[in-house]
Amino acid sequence: MAGRVSASSKKYSVSIIGASGYSGAELTKLLRLHPSVELKALYAFSQAGKTVSELYPSLSCDMVYRQYNKEQDSDIYFLALPHGEALNIVPALADAGRMVIDLSGDFRLKNTTEHERFYKQIKPSEAVMTYGLPELFLDEIRAVKAISNPGCYATSIILGLAPLFLGNDLSLKISSVSCTAVSGISGAGRSSKTELSFPEMSENLRAYKVGTHQHTPEIMQALGTSASDPSFEFTFTPMIGPLVRGIYSTLAVQLENPADGEMINNLYKNFYREAPFVRLRDTMTEIRHVAYTNYCDVHIANVTKNGTLVIVSAIDNLLKGAAGQAIQNMNIMLGIEQTAGLLF
Amino acid sequence: MAGRVSASSKKYSVSIIGASGYSGAELTKLLRLHPSVELKALYAFSQAGKTVSELYPSLSCDMVYRQYNKEQDSDIYFLALPHGEALNIVPALADAGRMVIDLSGDFRLKNTTEHERFYKQIKPSEAVMTYGLPELFLDEIRAVKAISNPGCYATSIILGLAPLFLGNDLSLKISSVSCTAVSGISGAGRSSKTELSFPEMSENLRAYKVGTHQHTPEIMQALGTSASDPSFEFTFTPMIGPLVRGIYSTLAVQLENPADGEMINNLYKNFYREAPFVRLRDTMTEIRHVAYTNYCDVHIANVTKNGTLVIVSAIDNLLKGAAGQAIQNMNIMLGIEQTAGLLF
Amino acid sequence: MAGRVSASSKKYSVSIIGASGYSGAELTKLLRLHPSVELKALYAFSQAGKTVSELYPSLSCDMVYRQYNKEQDSDIYFLALPHGEALNIVPALADAGRMVIDLSGDFRLKNTTEHERFYKQIKPSEAVMTYGLPELFLDEIRAVKAISNPGCYATSIILGLAPLFLGNDLSLKISSVSCTAVSGISGAGRSSKTELSFPEMSENLRAYKVGTHQHTPEIMQALGTSASDPSFEFTFTPMIGPLVRGIYSTLAVQLENPADGEMINNLYKNFYREAPFVRLRDTMTEIRHVAYTNYCDVHIANVTKNGTLVIVSAIDNLLKGAAGQAIQNMNIMLGIEQTAGLLF
Amino acid sequence: MAGRVSASSKKYSVSIIGASGYSGAELTKLLRLHPSVELKALYAFSQAGKTVSELYPSLSCDMVYRQYNKEQDSDIYFLALPHGEALNIVPALADAGRMVIDLSGDFRLKNTTEHERFYKQIKPSEAVMTYGLPELFLDEIRAVKAISNPGCYATSIILGLAPLFLGNDLSLKISSVSCTAVSGISGAGRSSKTELSFPEMSENLRAYKVGTHQHTPEIMQALGTSASDPSFEFTFTPMIGPLVRGIYSTLAVQLENPADGEMINNLYKNFYREAPFVRLRDTMTEIRHVAYTNYCDVHIANVTKNGTLVIVSAIDNLLKGAAGQAIQNMNIMLGIEQTAGLLF
Repeated sequence: MAGRVSASSKKYSVSIIGASGYSGAELTKLLRLHPSVELKALYAFSQAGKTVSELYPSLSCDMVYRQYNKEQDSDIYFLALPHGEALNIVPALADAGRMVIDLSGDFRLKNTTEHERFYKQIKPSEAVMTYGLPELFLDEIRAVKAISNPGCYATSIILGLAPLFLGNDLSLKISSVSCTAVSGISGAGRSSKTELSFPEMSENLRAYKVGTHQHTPEIMQALGTSASDPSFEFTFTPMIGPLVRGIYSTLAVQLENPADGEMINNLYKNFYREAPFVRLRDTMTEIRHVAYTNYCDVHIANVTKNGTLVIVSAIDNLLKGAAGQAIQNMNIMLGIEQTAGLLF
Repeated sequence: MAGRVSASSKKYSVSIIGASGYSGAELTKLLRLHPSVELKALYAFSQAGKTVSELYPSLSCDMVYRQYNKEQDSDIYFLALPHGEALNIVPALADAGRMVIDLSGDFRLKNTTEHERFYKQIKPSEAVMTYGLPELFLDEIRAVKAISNPGCYATSIILGLAPLFLGNDLSLKISSVSCTAVSGISGAGRSSKTELSFPEMSENLRAYKVGTHQHTPEIMQALGTSASDPSFEFTFTPMIGPLVRGIYSTLAVQLENPADGEMINNLYKNFYREAPFVRLRDTMTEIRHVAYTNYCDVHIANVTKNGTLVIVSAIDNLLKGAAGQAIQNMNIMLGIEQTAGLLF
Repeated sequence: MAGRVSASSKKYSVSIIGASGYSGAELTKLLRLHPSVELKALYAFSQAGKTVSELYPSLSCDMVYRQYNKEQDSDIYFLALPHGEALNIVPALADAGRMVIDLSGDFRLKNTTEHERFYKQIKPSEAVMTYGLPELFLDEIRAVKAISNPGCYATSIILGLAPLFLGNDLSLKISSVSCTAVSGISGAGRSSKTELSFPEMSENLRAYKVGTHQHTPEIMQALGTSASDPSFEFTFTPMIGPLVRGIYSTLAVQLENPADGEMINNLYKNFYREAPFVRLRDTMTEIRHVAYTNYCDVHIANVTKNGTLVIVSAIDNLLKGAAGQAIQNMNIMLGIEQTAGLLF
Repeated sequence: MAGRVSASSKKYSVSIIGASGYSGAELTKLLRLHPSVELKALYAFSQAGKTVSELYPSLSCDMVYRQYNKEQDSDIYFLALPHGEALNIVPALADAGRMVIDLSGDFRLKNTTEHERFYKQIKPSEAVMTYGLPELFLDEIRAVKAISNPGCYATSIILGLAPLFLGNDLSLKISSVSCTAVSGISGAGRSSKTELSFPEMSENLRAYKVGTHQHTPEIMQALGTSASDPSFEFTFTPMIGPLVRGIYSTLAVQLENPADGEMINNLYKNFYREAPFVRLRDTMTEIRHVAYTNYCDVHIANVTKNGTLVIVSAIDNLLKGAAGQAIQNMNIMLGIEQTAGLLF
């Protein structure tokens, strides 16, 4: 990959480790059509030996899932494994100079104590990679070859809040944020749990992990704040609802001082002026506006005189919340258009 | 139970074996409110030790599921077990004089060869009970104390076709019937199969067991016809779709002679004139019209000059297709109103 | 109705004005089965002349919708009209001594300025009736014959918050509440709006009226607080999602002091110890637990050391949020069991 | 357009008349990404003046819908209008030498009597264009510049049956076909009908136009058979169900003679050996396999000894059933790859 050549003359080889889940299938679909890469191998543990078409007939793909035996012969590796499994695979690939994009939570948190508390899993303190949220960390991503891809809830909530935390000169002082987010059920992965069966989830809504979801410290880390700050309260209530794809977040922000609607709007516009996948909306955001796209739609739904803001933020959990963003990160690291292969 | 007393002064004791599935839960719900019975015990194997409320919070019921140890101390037993398990339980209960209503397929088919072919399971030839479809076999049901409750698809399809097969003086000669039926996913039971998860079934439809579904011989037996009749073709294509409850059957009937719409209508009206749970509709039948009811709605959708009929028939698979019909059968055997506890 | 007689010997006559919408249909269904009443007339304006079965085939009801011409010949009147229409009908019925239960928002708010602001509609200052939320105002309801039935969001949210506001000795000081609630689409009424069509709402979520929903002042009035209190912030974000029935509310409460989980639990238990339709849950509340019931399920999902609570509250919007609660109010005013006709 | 140039150097200008409905929006989305065309104008009557993004925010398209005033300045015109409206627009465009693809039913039926009977609309006998089903009429499509694009049900059913009718040497004699098809509700267009609202269609199924659907004669015309053939019976029962996209057809075919499974399979394989968008499946077809693709999946689900076949066929109604197929036709007429712009 050294000695970069023009996109038209060279295709990078790409492999996916953990290719048989929903995020892996979405990566498979997108990378096959991506102009700058060639899909080389699909690794999947329990499904090894099956073709993609057996699991995902819509994809019309006869590639066979294989066991991963530490191969390093591709230029780029995407990992879409259950949490904990990438920890043992990424270091060797990175050491060998491969480009690595990990979709799990293994390498996201800098604070290992928080990692252990939220993931119930020990990890070495050096297991941290650049946080691949291009709208916040574009320069860092450009400079590295290994990325930890953000979580789906985290992407939606961070993008809804970032201008307030990172884009202002601190004349805005935020005292609390209360977030709820409804996720499509594909977010739980390709699953055989009774509680995710159609009869249990049709016409239903269910909150879970209230106050304990592992994306909570990820959000605070990205926003530069902390659960130990006594002057700031952050509440996050995740839910699943009767939809396959999408995350719909409502973010109620309490400021210490009155806010001005136009100022808030300008703050957001300025912050996202060069972000091709964030769309600021003048009218209400809906999941259908972003489903099957890599966009994050953000709408400032209410600004009250006494300093309460309500922001609504929506993404497709499998695209901007997983596979789409992973490819966006790859594009950035390859030095090609951020949007390559992501406009459909 | 001999020496019947008035409903106001006596309540029959009832137990459910296999109470923790969807049909068992529906039975639990209905029997608790039924004016003539008292729920005594709920037996469930894998869930023994849990309360009803733990599995079905909506029911607000603190009864505890128990292991079944051949108790015979209730007046009435409902069995809602996976196919094959009732075979070993029903005979002792029936011998002890208990009223028995079995919701499985174990005792439905008279032809053991067909049973073995469709259920992949051997059964003794005497393992047959009265077929509990009240609209066809009311007198037989009144005369017995043990009933095999019909299958859900079978109920919907038989009720849609019975007047043509059983209610006419044979001036109508039927050459073929082609049935399709879409079932709600609760029909597959309380399940943890990946292919029944919400992401797999939302916005989806899937046919299965085309030509091999076990309700096929059940339908033919009730209609008095047979797969071996060379002059009659019967095709049944079951499907599941993105709904929890309901069966929606379309029945295309080919007659050898032209049919007259008014004659067909009168045939149906006459056949069901005393059936409180069959509603002949002048306008199109829909699942929502019967969901959460014990009704079977039947609509004669088309009668062509050259002898093609299209009949549409809809039921709630958990009620008229299972628990509701089971209670209707109990009511008949108890000699009380067919509709007792079934109008909601 | 003076000289109350036993339920077994006397049935009250009941009529519904505005009977053809979803709440009216639910009232029709429930009142037909209620042991103490007899349905006399169904009034519906645009649908006058049709039978109930034409609009709601599931109900098997041949009563004909009629134009309302100021009849006063029933003992009890339910009004389920669009906002603004009951204002002109209720006073005459109340003056004539009829029992009146109005499901609209016309008579809920004491503050006419707030009514005008949120309903865009002027009303006379005397147009206020007792607020029919039995869990808070049981004695008041018992003492009157005319009731304003609460809104659906308001019921869910008030019941989730009331113990904190009304049940404590003020050692808890609440600084802010941030509510979100997802409603089933039946809450919008029987509608022909494009944005509520199946293709627009399947797999979708949409917030609306953020900060301007008319249930906001209703909630604050019932909780004894006010938007003008500078030390208290209240945010309400309503949403509709891909479900027919149900309201699922998440309530993030910020206390000024640390809270103790056990104390909060006891506060709720004590507050609702005699409320037959509020179920405090130890495990997570879901819409399916309350759909097709008159229950409100409340779960205290999180209590943090620094004083943040998350409460989840769920109801069926057409039952506890409308028709069921209306009948619960009727039962109370009639002096019969609160649960009469409401356990199914 | 005369003097065809290479795709890389020339882009054809394209306009859509009737661009604001669901098919129009799908065309807009696909044509913007198509390598060989440039979108010039979007015409829409009731929505003129709005931008695409106002109606379809997901598309991120600022083009403005305009009134159509007989412009002829594009190379290619797609018409996605309600039935009856294209009759007055197409002739002038065709006369002016423009390429025309009409998605309505106006130009499909050769038999004007049948057109009038099924469409309740008179049309001139010359109002017929080449039927744009590429898998059957590829050479005809290549030779013309004006196409009538098939109906959605018709596409699914014809492709499921064509090898039996058109691909065999007539050793197979078909006596009857009974079709049912469940359509996603987007097939009814962008609608504000109460009966298509979410609360009416969630968890529901509804047959309609049984025996009278306008795609019936279209299917028979394409298969080379006729309703007036006394030796052949054709029954079609369309339904809508709780899904947005997709058509799922089950086709029960009665042969006069026994059929051999392998022979049938070979017949289909041979017939579709050069059809890039028909996938013969060895396992069961589902809507999810074809949703958001231009594929038609066909599965021979059952072949009985006595000559009954059950074929299952699935498409995305907005793609292979409308916009995708329209672009496939355009590709063919332009002489470029059939799949250009249609693999996603």
